[in-house]
Amino acid sequence: MKSHTEYLKIKTKDRIEFINITEQVEKVVEKSKIKEGIVLVNPMHITASVYINDAESGLIEDYKEWLHKLVPDKDYKHNLTGEDNAFSHLMRTIMGRETVIAVTKGKLDFGTWEQIYYAEFDGQRQKRVLVKVLGE
Amino acid sequence: MKSHTEYLKIKTKDRIEFINITEQVEKVVEKSKIKEGIVLVNPMHITASVYINDAESGLIEDYKEWLHKLVPDKDYKHNLTGEDNAFSHLMRTIMGRETVIAVTKGKLDFGTWEQIYYAEFDGQRQKRVLVKVLGE
Amino acid sequence: MKSHTEYLKIKTKDRIEFINITEQVEKVVEKSKIKEGIVLVNPMHITASVYINDAESGLIEDYKEWLHKLVPDKDYKHNLTGEDNAFSHLMRTIMGRETVIAVTKGKLDFGTWEQIYYAEFDGQRQKRVLVKVLGE
Repeated sequence: MKSHTEYLKIKTKDRIEFINITEQVEKVVEKSKIKEGIVLVNPMHITASVYINDAESGLIEDYKEWLHKLVPDKDYKHNLTGEDNAFSHLMRTIMGRETVIAVTKGKLDFGTWEQIYYAEFDGQRQKRVLVKVLGE
Repeated sequence: MKSHTEYLKIKTKDRIEFINITEQVEKVVEKSKIKEGIVLVNPMHITASVYINDAESGLIEDYKEWLHKLVPDKDYKHNLTGEDNAFSHLMRTIMGRETVIAVTKGKLDFGTWEQIYYAEFDGQRQKRVLVKVLGE
Repeated sequence: MKSHTEYLKIKTKDRIEFINITEQVEKVVEKSKIKEGIVLVNPMHITASVYINDAESGLIEDYKEWLHKLVPDKDYKHNLTGEDNAFSHLMRTIMGRETVIAVTKGKLDFGTWEQIYYAEFDGQRQKRVLVKVLGE
């Protein structure tokens, strides 16, 4: 079994921001030379998500508005620690932490519309995304 | 390391429909002859989910009703593209995309009640589910 | 490829309870002697979750309160079977089933604040958590 690990660096302009990282992950898979296996992609932070869905700007606006409905502004207990990012932890919970993607014949084994997104909920500082390819 | 990949084909009668695919995944694991490893199961579409929970018809009705509460009908921006399936993308987000299941001694390493479901939120046309077994 | 599988046993005092299992998973990874690979961690039950987030007691209280908002008390159809745990299935759906974590140089490849939690939503009886390490 071969493995190949890289860490992408991401710094968003806005506190909440969604970034398409499909091409970056594709490049890591290519460099790994792994033909059959999986790739694990996850933020190394607990206020961000990696998820798979559409590269469509309207949907991304819908996500942001919907997450604000599901995670309303309120006095969260976490914020008594001096933080103000309880909402970021909860939004990341809805969107998930990691994704595991099949690698087949050296490529991401994706349907037509599958794209990999990094969703940041507490940005404006440097974050890391782990990409680990495993297989043969 | 060995790998074995198959693509299940699913066409639902209803737009929203939940289908138990446990037996189909078990058959792929058996055919793979892999004894120790994992199996990744995911839709290749962005308006469907693969998740693990109970094979109980009441719970499935509860899921459908609950998802409609969490994802109310409204004028989503995604639908300005001509689509009418923004709700399908959001419901799939709640239910998740993929599942990763342990394979031990050649079988799905499941607790008593674990069953694999395909949840369709924009059906009535043919969809594919990727099943990839990795291990030895 | 090597693999190593263990089953943690957990019995919570309360019906809903969150337990940090990071150290237990680290010990399994160490025992596996696997240096590069992944570890899959999941409950073998359908009313519990394994997720990654902060080891901060205020946030855990926020999670519990927020989940009660997203999954209100009501007459769920699942409970017509004689069960009273429909809410537990739905809360587990929000928090997810499993997590997949990279193992790099023999350690969990984690960011500073990542911790592994077992979230129980129907406890007070013995449950099992599967930990499977795969790699080389």
